[in-house]
Amino acid sequence: MTRVGIIGASGYTGAELARIICSHPEFEITLATSRKFAGRKLAEVFPHLRNLVDIVCDGSAPNTWAEKADVFFTAVPHQTAMDVVPPLLDAGKKVVDLSADFRIHDQATYEKWYVPHNSPQLLEKAVYGLPELYRDEIAGAQLVANPGCYPTSIILGLTPLLEAGAILPSPVIIDSKSGTTGAGRGLNPGSLFCEVHDGFRPYKVGRAHRHIPEIEQELTLRAKEKITISFTPHLLPISRGILSTIYTQIAPDFDTDQLQNILEKRYSGERFVRVLPSGQYPATQNVRGSNCCDIAAAFDKVTQRVVVMSAIDNIVKGASGQAIQNMNLMCGLPEGSGLEGAPFFP
Amino acid sequence: MTRVGIIGASGYTGAELARIICSHPEFEITLATSRKFAGRKLAEVFPHLRNLVDIVCDGSAPNTWAEKADVFFTAVPHQTAMDVVPPLLDAGKKVVDLSADFRIHDQATYEKWYVPHNSPQLLEKAVYGLPELYRDEIAGAQLVANPGCYPTSIILGLTPLLEAGAILPSPVIIDSKSGTTGAGRGLNPGSLFCEVHDGFRPYKVGRAHRHIPEIEQELTLRAKEKITISFTPHLLPISRGILSTIYTQIAPDFDTDQLQNILEKRYSGERFVRVLPSGQYPATQNVRGSNCCDIAAAFDKVTQRVVVMSAIDNIVKGASGQAIQNMNLMCGLPEGSGLEGAPFFP
Amino acid sequence: MTRVGIIGASGYTGAELARIICSHPEFEITLATSRKFAGRKLAEVFPHLRNLVDIVCDGSAPNTWAEKADVFFTAVPHQTAMDVVPPLLDAGKKVVDLSADFRIHDQATYEKWYVPHNSPQLLEKAVYGLPELYRDEIAGAQLVANPGCYPTSIILGLTPLLEAGAILPSPVIIDSKSGTTGAGRGLNPGSLFCEVHDGFRPYKVGRAHRHIPEIEQELTLRAKEKITISFTPHLLPISRGILSTIYTQIAPDFDTDQLQNILEKRYSGERFVRVLPSGQYPATQNVRGSNCCDIAAAFDKVTQRVVVMSAIDNIVKGASGQAIQNMNLMCGLPEGSGLEGAPFFP
Amino acid sequence: MTRVGIIGASGYTGAELARIICSHPEFEITLATSRKFAGRKLAEVFPHLRNLVDIVCDGSAPNTWAEKADVFFTAVPHQTAMDVVPPLLDAGKKVVDLSADFRIHDQATYEKWYVPHNSPQLLEKAVYGLPELYRDEIAGAQLVANPGCYPTSIILGLTPLLEAGAILPSPVIIDSKSGTTGAGRGLNPGSLFCEVHDGFRPYKVGRAHRHIPEIEQELTLRAKEKITISFTPHLLPISRGILSTIYTQIAPDFDTDQLQNILEKRYSGERFVRVLPSGQYPATQNVRGSNCCDIAAAFDKVTQRVVVMSAIDNIVKGASGQAIQNMNLMCGLPEGSGLEGAPFFP
Repeated sequence: MTRVGIIGASGYTGAELARIICSHPEFEITLATSRKFAGRKLAEVFPHLRNLVDIVCDGSAPNTWAEKADVFFTAVPHQTAMDVVPPLLDAGKKVVDLSADFRIHDQATYEKWYVPHNSPQLLEKAVYGLPELYRDEIAGAQLVANPGCYPTSIILGLTPLLEAGAILPSPVIIDSKSGTTGAGRGLNPGSLFCEVHDGFRPYKVGRAHRHIPEIEQELTLRAKEKITISFTPHLLPISRGILSTIYTQIAPDFDTDQLQNILEKRYSGERFVRVLPSGQYPATQNVRGSNCCDIAAAFDKVTQRVVVMSAIDNIVKGASGQAIQNMNLMCGLPEGSGLEGAPFFP
Repeated sequence: MTRVGIIGASGYTGAELARIICSHPEFEITLATSRKFAGRKLAEVFPHLRNLVDIVCDGSAPNTWAEKADVFFTAVPHQTAMDVVPPLLDAGKKVVDLSADFRIHDQATYEKWYVPHNSPQLLEKAVYGLPELYRDEIAGAQLVANPGCYPTSIILGLTPLLEAGAILPSPVIIDSKSGTTGAGRGLNPGSLFCEVHDGFRPYKVGRAHRHIPEIEQELTLRAKEKITISFTPHLLPISRGILSTIYTQIAPDFDTDQLQNILEKRYSGERFVRVLPSGQYPATQNVRGSNCCDIAAAFDKVTQRVVVMSAIDNIVKGASGQAIQNMNLMCGLPEGSGLEGAPFFP
Repeated sequence: MTRVGIIGASGYTGAELARIICSHPEFEITLATSRKFAGRKLAEVFPHLRNLVDIVCDGSAPNTWAEKADVFFTAVPHQTAMDVVPPLLDAGKKVVDLSADFRIHDQATYEKWYVPHNSPQLLEKAVYGLPELYRDEIAGAQLVANPGCYPTSIILGLTPLLEAGAILPSPVIIDSKSGTTGAGRGLNPGSLFCEVHDGFRPYKVGRAHRHIPEIEQELTLRAKEKITISFTPHLLPISRGILSTIYTQIAPDFDTDQLQNILEKRYSGERFVRVLPSGQYPATQNVRGSNCCDIAAAFDKVTQRVVVMSAIDNIVKGASGQAIQNMNLMCGLPEGSGLEGAPFFP
Repeated sequence: MTRVGIIGASGYTGAELARIICSHPEFEITLATSRKFAGRKLAEVFPHLRNLVDIVCDGSAPNTWAEKADVFFTAVPHQTAMDVVPPLLDAGKKVVDLSADFRIHDQATYEKWYVPHNSPQLLEKAVYGLPELYRDEIAGAQLVANPGCYPTSIILGLTPLLEAGAILPSPVIIDSKSGTTGAGRGLNPGSLFCEVHDGFRPYKVGRAHRHIPEIEQELTLRAKEKITISFTPHLLPISRGILSTIYTQIAPDFDTDQLQNILEKRYSGERFVRVLPSGQYPATQNVRGSNCCDIAAAFDKVTQRVVVMSAIDNIVKGASGQAIQNMNLMCGLPEGSGLEGAPFFP
């Protein structure tokens, strides 16, 4: 068994890592840090894990962590991650970081959208952890930057068409909708049940959301041409799930059948990406609780627009599930270990 | 008191008409038709109306209806409306029709998207019932075609900017999300609680939804230039509410402040349209249960895109509330009679 | 117009008071206090009230309040209310207090369940604000203690049967379920969307909830015999609504028909209490957004048990609506002023 | 691999059987019957199963079924099951029946609550499939009657206390709340999203629900004394989950600590029953998607009442999960095969 450390275990992504590892044949949790709940069982903090996860939250200093596990998931906020990750790497450990700190290759871009970076040398070393794009690099990496939830849904949706040159690099207009786990377990009024329930709203409209540079970086790499997006996130009254609806323009000489073929061919060997038959569309409830990403494209001849739709569970394929998938690759395990479960519906 | 007839009272829009009329100072329901529930009290079919609505569902033949009320709301499916409305008009009654049958001015367009029309002469006579656009015409009309729910949210959002020439006529990309009352009370698997709850999905993607010609007709009239839209509807796990997120391109020589001014000025005298301050965005829960439409615009300098957001309660401003607003105008009553209630939140 | 002061306007009950007063023909808000939001418009704190409520939150000292309004609703936590209310009474103002501070007649009981009371002389003076029980006393009162939400649903449900001696005073087992507005707008983890959504749980099981003494006080007065209850509250994943299911034993010589008659007769003149026909049961969605209380009773011959069910909207009839109803009575206005709206469904 | 047949695969319990079997190491589906969807892939009917379940719905006659699988789950309505099961047994197959047809040992009782029974000889042969009570009998059975969802939650909650004589046999008052999957996938108005969402209601109040005889049969067996219950089911606006709150009277000479000990001891070796620490209570969201049953008891000294609370996922431990658990036992497999997954929260 590989000893796993979860740094920052008391958030939703930490809990979800623990849930998945419960059923993982090769991983066992030997460290779960939480200052707030130090000394308490993780299964007390998250009673759904009772009898299944038997680890006590560790509040001791970061310099004690490296020896307590073989591989690490860092599920802490950005800016904290850049402090926490380097010592683990120095100790020779493998790390999947779930924050934004190592996702952006260009230091200036990172610092424009986030904060000054104190370990910029790692930006180059880190591999962007989207296995369907970077499988081989991930397998050889010591540090993997786990993608953001919105970016996962969007990049997987657009990659085949951009690589094939089937859509134009502009415009790319992305209308995304996310469940409320995306806001985390922090206490803020906008996350209260009565504020979210039976409602729906956009937020961070315009060029405001920090996932924009990450999405543009990867789309640009796919298109081999600079891509600038419009991106509007919205908050759904559901716990789990992201659905992105993406509006693009078809390239000359492409048609509907080709679009479908391109999608199907690109992902034909992929376990976790399901291209839907023409005329069917993704739904968050069909991927709930699973590591699946469901993708479809529709073409409107009148406007020559291609609408790409993509659904994931934001804390599985959009966070903890993908992190496990990455770590499986890094450890030479079957990529789907621990992630076999079918989506939950209804 | 004006005697009101509701033709098709057993659907959600029928029930909502009855709910609003409960508090209306000048209207009283004297006819509520329903073949299915003939002979039963409407308050049995909709127990929330118990003690408040004292009318028995009438299952008698259409030729008996005209004499039983002074004004009529026809809340029946399209194609049925075109049979039901003409005799009421012939009897000299005022009618607000909530179906699609009289919304489209061009017969060929109607027939392309719907069915053959058997009263095409009325297409010219009917006034499109968006009071913020056609107040005077509505006041003088005998037949008002109550707008669709999606169109209401979209047309109100784009009208000021199109009229002012502040956005280009293309592209206009509309990503709309609707609560489940929009699907009506009919029994189909996709409307079951377990299929909708805790989920989110697009439907009728591409050039598929029948509201498209209605939206294009009105936007084209505003812009005085042909407008062709992309429109994707989605199903939200809420009962009431539509939020439309609309992507357009700014016209040369316009900037953010002007956009805000244009919106505020256009709707400065309107009771039911609330333009939000810059930086705030609409939410369906803020208009729930009311006849309000909340609108905001955001501008992204990098892409030169204007994002317009608009929220309504789809069965109030998007259906029954707007129908009452129209009938108030047609009857020379204060436009807001019966519609004074504030939105209810949480 | 009567000038109304809302002390503690930034919670859900404060917002609901403001929402109802919007449509009230005789009340206008001239004071809305909030330290946290002092200087900001109440409609900024609660954007659903935009354009409808035009008052700025007042953060000034309590000694300035009395002159700013004629009548007061105190919507502050218990223990704060006992400080805030007496000066308003001393200034000759009428007060409806929404906290628990003046609901319990017996000082020792209050202090056992809550905290030491610093204005015990008011316990006698305050009238318990359930109009269906104490209409005349309320009309003549200067201070009304607005009932708790659970107590309202329970006392209204049991009053007719206890008064008629149709059920035994023991056992009285009450299983209540409440929407999440009951937990208020405070930031605690248990009120987060992701903790409540798609779930259900009991809380404060056993003799733990502070509404117990209030319920027992009133039931004992009805029965003229000491009543001790079992009470289990549960948290529903809805915003508004309480449904109480109450298990009692029938008294000798009573039968089903009599139970129904007793309920109907007791509430025959009541505008806001709706006794359902035999065989129909209340549902929170049928009273949502209204001041209605729906009541039904079922009888099981085998066990000789009478099950009473009662549904209210917990922040209307269970809080702010009932407070308005009380103030209407205290001001000599029609009891239903501002409360005419039908329930919202769906 | 054992070949599994699902008779009636197009309902929610059928889909859930398929979902669980996806991850089961020894079972593979070789027959999934559905007249309605004959010839279509099950993964088309339930798109969450795409790429995971590769079986086509079989619409052929029942006499062809037996040869197509080794073991059978019959997920058809009561009355249909009694026709479908005997031929499978005659062919020597093992059957777990998810209907009510073989749960009641006494033919007269069955026929009083349901319909005439045409295979009464099987009532004696069938084993009631609650593994925590009848593990050995199940292991040796050819026909197991899978318990109802409400009964599972209730019987597991009360068994330890009844067996120990710690509570009196009367009164036993059960207030249960169920998610909407319990109503199945059939089309009826009460199951529509807009009727259930944001609401809560009791149904079949009094001695009306068909699970009553099943519950009384098993409680009576535990207590070795006739037990007659009061039972009120309610409909929750969630998909999965049942929570039962059960009111009983403590027996002389028992106290709180003993209650807790009795519960913990009775279930100490059980994988799927989790007794919560004193002072903690179950929540449906903590067992969602899993085969767990969470149980707690609270004692109120004043009324001498013991409140037992029990939560399950109604379509896992309350239906399909328990059916797999039973079949595992019948096939000599590890009892938890395919059921290892942790509950998913949030």
